[in-house]
Amino acid sequence: MQYSFASRAQTLLSSPLRDIRELAKRDSFISLAEELPAEELFPLHSLAEAATSVLSEDPLALQYGEAEGYGPLREWLSQDFSRRKGLSVQPQHILLTTGTQQAIDLLVRVYVDPGDPVLVENPTSPGLLQVLRLQGALIVPVEGDQNGMLPEHLEAMIRQHKPKLLMAAPNFTNPTGVMWSLERRKQVLELCVQHGLLIVEDDSYGDLYFADAKNQGTRIPSIFSLEEPQGKHVLYVGSFSKTVAPALRTGWAAGNRRVIEMMTAVKQMADWQSSMLNQRMLHNLLESKHFQLEDHIGMLNREYATRLKLMVELLKRSAWKDSTYAVPSGGMFLWVQLPPGLNGDALLRASLLKGAAFLPGSMCSAEDHTRECIRLNFTHPGRDELLLGMNLISEAVLEFTARN
Amino acid sequence: MQYSFASRAQTLLSSPLRDIRELAKRDSFISLAEELPAEELFPLHSLAEAATSVLSEDPLALQYGEAEGYGPLREWLSQDFSRRKGLSVQPQHILLTTGTQQAIDLLVRVYVDPGDPVLVENPTSPGLLQVLRLQGALIVPVEGDQNGMLPEHLEAMIRQHKPKLLMAAPNFTNPTGVMWSLERRKQVLELCVQHGLLIVEDDSYGDLYFADAKNQGTRIPSIFSLEEPQGKHVLYVGSFSKTVAPALRTGWAAGNRRVIEMMTAVKQMADWQSSMLNQRMLHNLLESKHFQLEDHIGMLNREYATRLKLMVELLKRSAWKDSTYAVPSGGMFLWVQLPPGLNGDALLRASLLKGAAFLPGSMCSAEDHTRECIRLNFTHPGRDELLLGMNLISEAVLEFTARN
Repeated sequence: MQYSFASRAQTLLSSPLRDIRELAKRDSFISLAEELPAEELFPLHSLAEAATSVLSEDPLALQYGEAEGYGPLREWLSQDFSRRKGLSVQPQHILLTTGTQQAIDLLVRVYVDPGDPVLVENPTSPGLLQVLRLQGALIVPVEGDQNGMLPEHLEAMIRQHKPKLLMAAPNFTNPTGVMWSLERRKQVLELCVQHGLLIVEDDSYGDLYFADAKNQGTRIPSIFSLEEPQGKHVLYVGSFSKTVAPALRTGWAAGNRRVIEMMTAVKQMADWQSSMLNQRMLHNLLESKHFQLEDHIGMLNREYATRLKLMVELLKRSAWKDSTYAVPSGGMFLWVQLPPGLNGDALLRASLLKGAAFLPGSMCSAEDHTRECIRLNFTHPGRDELLLGMNLISEAVLEFTARN
Repeated sequence: MQYSFASRAQTLLSSPLRDIRELAKRDSFISLAEELPAEELFPLHSLAEAATSVLSEDPLALQYGEAEGYGPLREWLSQDFSRRKGLSVQPQHILLTTGTQQAIDLLVRVYVDPGDPVLVENPTSPGLLQVLRLQGALIVPVEGDQNGMLPEHLEAMIRQHKPKLLMAAPNFTNPTGVMWSLERRKQVLELCVQHGLLIVEDDSYGDLYFADAKNQGTRIPSIFSLEEPQGKHVLYVGSFSKTVAPALRTGWAAGNRRVIEMMTAVKQMADWQSSMLNQRMLHNLLESKHFQLEDHIGMLNREYATRLKLMVELLKRSAWKDSTYAVPSGGMFLWVQLPPGLNGDALLRASLLKGAAFLPGSMCSAEDHTRECIRLNFTHPGRDELLLGMNLISEAVLEFTARN
């Protein structure tokens, strides 16, 4: 049988992450390549209670539901927008999805035709690049710095390519961990409004903000919240995967009613709906007196901040002396520019032999740039694992730098 | 803001099912339009136990998992193939999906380029037509009768269109409820092998088989099982949505390793993975000593067979005297050809005013044929509801036929 796959489907098979995941099944292997929260911090007991409560009541918890997602959870999100951000976002402007990855895939399927130029951050997340490649988009990277996307380059790319879509994660963007300044957010929004671009703002990591006592109040508003009314030019996507638990597979998109309706229609076609059972469990948890989401996130952030500090300490060792990095104030990743001459893909091969992995920068660039960078995850490995993993990667670095 | 949606996305918004669902939220409304199992028959208590068990053990139940799906559940499916069907299907040839709808969407995304001809049954399911339309396929309907697809017409369509894909549901196909004969299955397989077509065999309804004691042994083998080795020309898709519970959102695809790998890659891009929590709960249930899947399905089938009998009795009333239908031996639907001159869309409008709905046949045809047919679901409404719903639809029929 000669299988005849769709022309762009082959682009999907090239992910080195698949090989890393195969290796990572070995017990002793340490992966800093993934985008995983720490499972030992999940609210396991509270979710067990939520499951019992949901499954003791109503067989409809096991039935098909609405493509938009469970109504009371969309209502909760609407109230959360109001409570925490002072924004008015009605439930019918919210679609529940199987994580932010699905929200992004759905939007791209309804908004992008093959050949359409789409602006992305440079570097950006491998998952986003894959979605855009399968849809046949022309991927246009826009340069940024430690304050976010550069408005001058953005404007130049808009004029050159006439795109209709910009995709960005202004809070602790994947992979660099950069938090955009308020000024940049305003400038980017203004340019997109002026030229009629839709912005997809991925805020998957926004709640993982490692504030200390004195800068608690300085969280920077989302681009979504800077526009009034919300949603005209910005589709805001978020998730409970990093703040509660990924296996609930619950993310959301919030925005203009027409965009949400179109995404809902393709969602229904793609999988009818995400699990009502998971959405009801999550809603039950969030409404429970025994669980406070903000306290839970505070606990996560204290632990993740500690792990990040440990990683930064380990990067002070001699192996890394010619590398450069900026310490992020949140998120899940540290983005490291390797010592001169060192290539992330070659380092990964050496590192895999030692039993540790990270994400090579080449996977985060549409044009195969950022080969000299690597992305290290500090949220999943426990402290001991982190120490051991960094030791193994350091050994690999030394093998290269000692040669030069 | 001028939203500029992808060119084919608009085709998604035309579903009258969305309006029916809005109406069906009213308490008194009775919908025979849906494809829902009976929620009062769900194993609620057993699943509550499974949830408690899974969430008391291992925080990994809440973590991200593999795109392919939870290993032990794929192992269970592999053993089930062997136990119940005598087939050897390895776990690595199985992908878990968010229901069969996602399995079909994923396959179409990796296998179909815009303009590619794809053969479908005529009539076929609205969900399949939507997937094919969004992908830009050329939909080629193949005629059938009460024994399944007609080989002569299939061969003619293959010669005329040179398609690479055929999609069919030989067990109680949606919407007609037809069960293909063994002979037809063999003929269709032979033609597809000869011309190098991949068959997607949707067996979502196959377990809902209303055998009586004497024909228990006469279940007809799947097309998938007729080929050796399995999977070369047939991708087999199935689901626990109809046999256990839809909210677990667990379906699967089984087939050739290359096809499964490609689907896994696009699955990962589309939503990373389905819920590991749901898959673990389902696996726990299936392995539990307190739950026997075959007994549970037997109970479902006895009740569904009774509801079908009731519906058939109600169709003997005078309103329906010039309608025709074949009583299916399983599945979820009864497909009725209306009295001459009556149109399903017009009847639906009249019926909605009375507070009842069904699926109009026009939604099941690529070429807007089968307007004179309607699809009635007999699994979801309880007996009283079924009686009331059929009364309301009968009234609507009489309004038309009385006029003539």
